[in-house]
Amino acid sequence: MNKMIKVDFNSDLGESFGNYKIGLDSEILHQVTSANVACGFHAGDASIMAQTVQLALDKGVAIGAHPGFPDLQGFGRRKIEMNTSDITDIVAYQVGALSAFTPDHKLHHVKAHGALYNMAAKDRLIADAVITGIKLVDPQTIVYGLANSELIKAAQNANMKFAQEVFADRNYQSDGSLVPRSQPNAVISNPAEAAQRALEMVEKKSVVSVTGEVVPLAVDSICVHGDNHSAVDLAIEIKKLLLENQVTVTNKIC
Amino acid sequence: MNKMIKVDFNSDLGESFGNYKIGLDSEILHQVTSANVACGFHAGDASIMAQTVQLALDKGVAIGAHPGFPDLQGFGRRKIEMNTSDITDIVAYQVGALSAFTPDHKLHHVKAHGALYNMAAKDRLIADAVITGIKLVDPQTIVYGLANSELIKAAQNANMKFAQEVFADRNYQSDGSLVPRSQPNAVISNPAEAAQRALEMVEKKSVVSVTGEVVPLAVDSICVHGDNHSAVDLAIEIKKLLLENQVTVTNKIC
Amino acid sequence: MNKMIKVDFNSDLGESFGNYKIGLDSEILHQVTSANVACGFHAGDASIMAQTVQLALDKGVAIGAHPGFPDLQGFGRRKIEMNTSDITDIVAYQVGALSAFTPDHKLHHVKAHGALYNMAAKDRLIADAVITGIKLVDPQTIVYGLANSELIKAAQNANMKFAQEVFADRNYQSDGSLVPRSQPNAVISNPAEAAQRALEMVEKKSVVSVTGEVVPLAVDSICVHGDNHSAVDLAIEIKKLLLENQVTVTNKIC
Amino acid sequence: MNKMIKVDFNSDLGESFGNYKIGLDSEILHQVTSANVACGFHAGDASIMAQTVQLALDKGVAIGAHPGFPDLQGFGRRKIEMNTSDITDIVAYQVGALSAFTPDHKLHHVKAHGALYNMAAKDRLIADAVITGIKLVDPQTIVYGLANSELIKAAQNANMKFAQEVFADRNYQSDGSLVPRSQPNAVISNPAEAAQRALEMVEKKSVVSVTGEVVPLAVDSICVHGDNHSAVDLAIEIKKLLLENQVTVTNKIC
Repeated sequence: MNKMIKVDFNSDLGESFGNYKIGLDSEILHQVTSANVACGFHAGDASIMAQTVQLALDKGVAIGAHPGFPDLQGFGRRKIEMNTSDITDIVAYQVGALSAFTPDHKLHHVKAHGALYNMAAKDRLIADAVITGIKLVDPQTIVYGLANSELIKAAQNANMKFAQEVFADRNYQSDGSLVPRSQPNAVISNPAEAAQRALEMVEKKSVVSVTGEVVPLAVDSICVHGDNHSAVDLAIEIKKLLLENQVTVTNKIC
Repeated sequence: MNKMIKVDFNSDLGESFGNYKIGLDSEILHQVTSANVACGFHAGDASIMAQTVQLALDKGVAIGAHPGFPDLQGFGRRKIEMNTSDITDIVAYQVGALSAFTPDHKLHHVKAHGALYNMAAKDRLIADAVITGIKLVDPQTIVYGLANSELIKAAQNANMKFAQEVFADRNYQSDGSLVPRSQPNAVISNPAEAAQRALEMVEKKSVVSVTGEVVPLAVDSICVHGDNHSAVDLAIEIKKLLLENQVTVTNKIC
Repeated sequence: MNKMIKVDFNSDLGESFGNYKIGLDSEILHQVTSANVACGFHAGDASIMAQTVQLALDKGVAIGAHPGFPDLQGFGRRKIEMNTSDITDIVAYQVGALSAFTPDHKLHHVKAHGALYNMAAKDRLIADAVITGIKLVDPQTIVYGLANSELIKAAQNANMKFAQEVFADRNYQSDGSLVPRSQPNAVISNPAEAAQRALEMVEKKSVVSVTGEVVPLAVDSICVHGDNHSAVDLAIEIKKLLLENQVTVTNKIC
Repeated sequence: MNKMIKVDFNSDLGESFGNYKIGLDSEILHQVTSANVACGFHAGDASIMAQTVQLALDKGVAIGAHPGFPDLQGFGRRKIEMNTSDITDIVAYQVGALSAFTPDHKLHHVKAHGALYNMAAKDRLIADAVITGIKLVDPQTIVYGLANSELIKAAQNANMKFAQEVFADRNYQSDGSLVPRSQPNAVISNPAEAAQRALEMVEKKSVVSVTGEVVPLAVDSICVHGDNHSAVDLAIEIKKLLLENQVTVTNKIC
């Protein structure tokens, strides 16, 4: 029965900065069960963080930190060749900073952002550096990472709880990695198709790659976006189909 | 008996940034009992913070956060007309960030830096904003502030522990405020005179102002500097005289 | 005949930053005759500056620099207690940086932004510091400033060309300063009323203050905004009425 | 006769920032003929730039811009995966900003800094992006680059003047690149040996690689450092030997 199947819905929030507003935070908060809150390095500032935490608390959405590279102009999406010890320190700093604003200074989870997320998915040394930074602040929190990635292995190795994350609107390669955005078939833009794909991933714990292979995939959390109205609509569509099929959407995944 | 008299020695540390080194941290750590660690806004960065906390732990020096304005170029010494709600948020952010690096994520104390320290000493609304930010993160920590300042009153009013701080190398005005650095008699440069002044403040809980009045002063902590060798020598001189007179130099002040 | 009357229309542009978009730049560029381009301190970045200069060139809009305080989070609207020598240097730096992107590295004008604009309007030392920075880079450019302000006097004193700026949607006090936004009657929100006020200011070179006095006012340029659609509509309304009354809207004002 | 041989001596200057002091600028200015002045992204700030330009003018040292990545914490030494269009823009921005402070707003040369220098040496697309940014501001200035690098080829291709730079205290590989600092024989620490090597490079227009091959090398400028007293001493030693051998040390190289 699908009722036994649980999946979390997560989204990046609190990415505004000072006078600059970005993201439909209050709309996407109606859909998700967990929020990745920017921590002031690639996006967000102290006041946005305080407000975003409050918004999430009001909606009963679980709060996680979303640490990234110190690169506001690049929105944390540009690789920076930072040594692993510095990566540990900037992760701990940001996780600590967000913890200041949460009740009891606890975080449900931590998910690395942008280039740091991608680098930690593929490079074990960077993955270990990220995990060390998270564990330093809260060894009980859940590490979110790309399913099957080096970050998940690093979390496992460090005895940290983890949640494997999938993308309903992205095509996969046979090795379980995402088709890069530079390729034409990277994104699934049809909402119905994306929702169907999400349901199948959740039910079968696998995805069919663009080359036809069945790729096994743990599916603890689905990442959705609140950048614009069609992104929010996509999240609504996916969630609707999952609920119609008796999947339990919840952040109680560990 | 002076043995009953306790006083803390505090200094600002961890003010380096990336490639830029400032302050004789390892030298002044031999003298002080508590360290105010910069939190990445006016000085310091995540890696410097991690290293400074470790240095202080190695020396048994109590660790406090030293939040300031977001102004690296101005070293946090320029007033920024920030609204009180934003002040609360940047204080909480910085205190939380430093907490990431300390054992059990506890801080001995928090002391505002530079322009924020001065503004909070005189303006009760700003003082309250600073206290709110500190209390949000750790209601048990000690608030350091200028003796007799608005910040001390705000801490008291918020039921926070506090430590009143004095400067041994500065002259005082009759209202208990420091003679501004713009005036010729602001600083006491003779080490022996500064040490004698420190001893008198500690023993008599008062200071004689430049106009001759006896100004009552609580003396929980003496602020010393590690900017250069003569600053460190001054700290050594002061501490030596206090110890010779059986004053207990300790961070266990609350 | 009004045909002899010339007035410039200026607006702040290029205030986006990295991933953050702000302002309806391409819409307001259809209305204005001169653009104040943010220079990377309070808003804008090098790439936004390059793009904004190109957009303005395409529309035949005169390009000016819009230097501000180094405070992206506060959007340059928070006063920073910076010494005058540093103010000169940050103004020169920003003006030079924008000049990199303009043909022949010339600028039509320079207008200080936000808190720096307001401080330079009232404080002659700051006004002089701003003028010194501008003159260092281009002694031929036009200084834009609030009509009757200290900045205009400083420009005059330095033998710089200047343009006095008025606000059609703001009420004035009897001393020629704007009614502060904190007061209920600060802003004129009715577009027709604002347009009428603009026409009267342009024709009569004066404005009636909230207390009924006629305040003489040079009117070289009218500041309009492109923050949102109603701001753009207001600009359209004002310009329409001026053109209907044969006022020449042009940046050839000096 | 060596008197016909000309070589320039260049050094990185103006790398202090706000309260942070770095480099023995006034000492190394006695030795060099051209200065690479940091432009506020990886080091330096507007006021340091103004002061450094003045210092160089006082000593008759030619002034060049030293643009780098926007990474003060990493001192511009960390690779940032920035797209080429953004690289062009940040180079133009920084070159323009420094030009604000020089007489007639002219620069003798431009030399990329740190990671940007290294990336432009090896990657032609990045080299072209840097050249485009420089040329946008001043098509007459001299591009400094590693001898035989992609940047030199890009400058040549863009019809820009260029100066090929060598390092007297570094060993070379057979392909003309420097032995990486990670290897034990990267640096020549003996001053006499470095000076001798400089003289040979200047006279023979070649260097013997660590594997014994003679590598042809144009030698327009020698890079020396002012980070500490031994670096300055090394510069003195090299210059002394060159002068003793009638080499003309001058910035008039193009």
